[in-house]
Amino acid sequence: MTKIAVLGAGSWGTTFAKVLADNPANKVTLWARRADVADEINLDHRNGDYLPGVSLPISLTATTSVEKALANAEQVYLSVPAQTLRANLQEWGEYLPKSAILVSLMKGVEKDTGLRMSEVIQQVTAFDPAQIAVISGPNLALEIAAEQPAASVAASADKNTASAVASAASNEYFTTFTNTDVIGTEFGGILKNLIAVAIGIVNGVGYGENTKASIMTRGLAEISRFAVAYGAKPNTMVGLAGLGDLIATSESPLSRNHKAGEMLGKGYTLREVLKRMSQTAEGLSSVAPVLQLAAEKNVKMPIVEQVQLVLLGQLDPRDIAPHLTHETDGPQGE
Amino acid sequence: MTKIAVLGAGSWGTTFAKVLADNPANKVTLWARRADVADEINLDHRNGDYLPGVSLPISLTATTSVEKALANAEQVYLSVPAQTLRANLQEWGEYLPKSAILVSLMKGVEKDTGLRMSEVIQQVTAFDPAQIAVISGPNLALEIAAEQPAASVAASADKNTASAVASAASNEYFTTFTNTDVIGTEFGGILKNLIAVAIGIVNGVGYGENTKASIMTRGLAEISRFAVAYGAKPNTMVGLAGLGDLIATSESPLSRNHKAGEMLGKGYTLREVLKRMSQTAEGLSSVAPVLQLAAEKNVKMPIVEQVQLVLLGQLDPRDIAPHLTHETDGPQGE
Repeated sequence: MTKIAVLGAGSWGTTFAKVLADNPANKVTLWARRADVADEINLDHRNGDYLPGVSLPISLTATTSVEKALANAEQVYLSVPAQTLRANLQEWGEYLPKSAILVSLMKGVEKDTGLRMSEVIQQVTAFDPAQIAVISGPNLALEIAAEQPAASVAASADKNTASAVASAASNEYFTTFTNTDVIGTEFGGILKNLIAVAIGIVNGVGYGENTKASIMTRGLAEISRFAVAYGAKPNTMVGLAGLGDLIATSESPLSRNHKAGEMLGKGYTLREVLKRMSQTAEGLSSVAPVLQLAAEKNVKMPIVEQVQLVLLGQLDPRDIAPHLTHETDGPQGE
Repeated sequence: MTKIAVLGAGSWGTTFAKVLADNPANKVTLWARRADVADEINLDHRNGDYLPGVSLPISLTATTSVEKALANAEQVYLSVPAQTLRANLQEWGEYLPKSAILVSLMKGVEKDTGLRMSEVIQQVTAFDPAQIAVISGPNLALEIAAEQPAASVAASADKNTASAVASAASNEYFTTFTNTDVIGTEFGGILKNLIAVAIGIVNGVGYGENTKASIMTRGLAEISRFAVAYGAKPNTMVGLAGLGDLIATSESPLSRNHKAGEMLGKGYTLREVLKRMSQTAEGLSSVAPVLQLAAEKNVKMPIVEQVQLVLLGQLDPRDIAPHLTHETDGPQGE
């Protein structure tokens, strides 16, 4: 049995704890901040606030004690808000078993530092990069909780670590593949939000599948250029953490980034969109910093630039796509 | 002015003639087999049988005389049924201007020979490969005819030929990029149909965006392996003619391949699906020959193999996706 701790009982943490517990080779303990959530998981095998209607495995146990959850854990999966990860790790550090593998389930960057989640983990814990992994892919929590078949990728600088995580995080309905490109795997989950906003915009305008497919394809090319300039491997971006996540996010009506884009496409201003959305759409706030970073490496991102013009109210959403696909006047290579 | 002939006034030929005529640098003549179609285009600027509700450019003229259409043409776009191309070219050969660029708008292979369209063109006309190009991409005719923004790619062994075609085939709503990989560009348009059937199946079963995104991503990887084994460049497969066309076809309710898969996913047998569909779904008939060719080059295609098992009635469509994503028992690289 592989002893596993999952820290964070929100919708994604709970879903992933279920994925792990549905592999009979694992013994999984889920840490929840709230006692009522832990009780409900232990007694009713449910987490009604975050995964309504989903039955959790009976073998999955929950606790509000980080110390208990982490005792003898061989693998520790982290699913806390990106902006609290640093403080959480500082508080929990003493309980982390020194030989454990730490796995980030989070997508995002730390606002103040611009660091990716695996970088924050390494900085705070001082664990060897060979003990750190990230999981990313086309992973809408509710569909996975419903046991719809899906796939994901585990990346670590160490191939054996990636394999150990992939073995634990696979079951009858969920397959985790491996790669060694941590940078690309994390960037995929961050950058796809920008293209999802663009797809949302053209959807809101009312354009069809060709336009969306053209933007998704050219958008993947431009976020790949960006990620590669910052150290990612090109193959990762056409894999599950890049393309896979981009497709799932762009096509899902559940995606906040898609939704925000759609409202912009229908003619709402950025101010109106922000007022109407209860939760942040990461893609909107990433546009300016990503374009800044792109400029520093001379990476051209025509689609993201046009999204920015729409956000600024300087481009009619109806005019977005032709500009997106033209970078110069003459014919150019793909 | 570039003098252009488009041969074939079906929905795609007529749409592409409109794309070309909407670039003011071109003078376009469309050849139609039927006199009533040519008359309707010339007098009413419509082609009601193939593009109902679409207004064609006034500058676009039609004729039933191949000789007239081809006189002094600098670029000749071919849009006839894949299985009649050889006979058509044999009949028209004498009228083809010797210095013209010949452009295939067709997706498919010749049944008896297994040749791609550009290979048939070269074999029959004996034109230099530098004079032959193909256009492919996410191109649902009705959306382009409605002037929704989209992109495509023109491929030729000769870079200048690809550029000349891309210049002619671009306008305000349509952008054509270039590459020099004719094989990959043609294979993209053929192989994506197989994955569209798989997506249709999981859609029919009722699975959501994760499952579809996982299959699309892993499916692209497997058709890329196939195409590369047969001479395509990997980059082409993640471009507009590969990924772009795959997304548009897989997401479109208009796609016959998607539709056929969907019925299979809902539990209809292959026999019932074939009986209910008025037109062929290319993807269904390509499964066996593609798997045969894959075996010859030792290319693994687990998704296409599972589609075949569903077609044979040997696999319940509900079980398709987990098998699709598992190639071996242990963890494996992306």
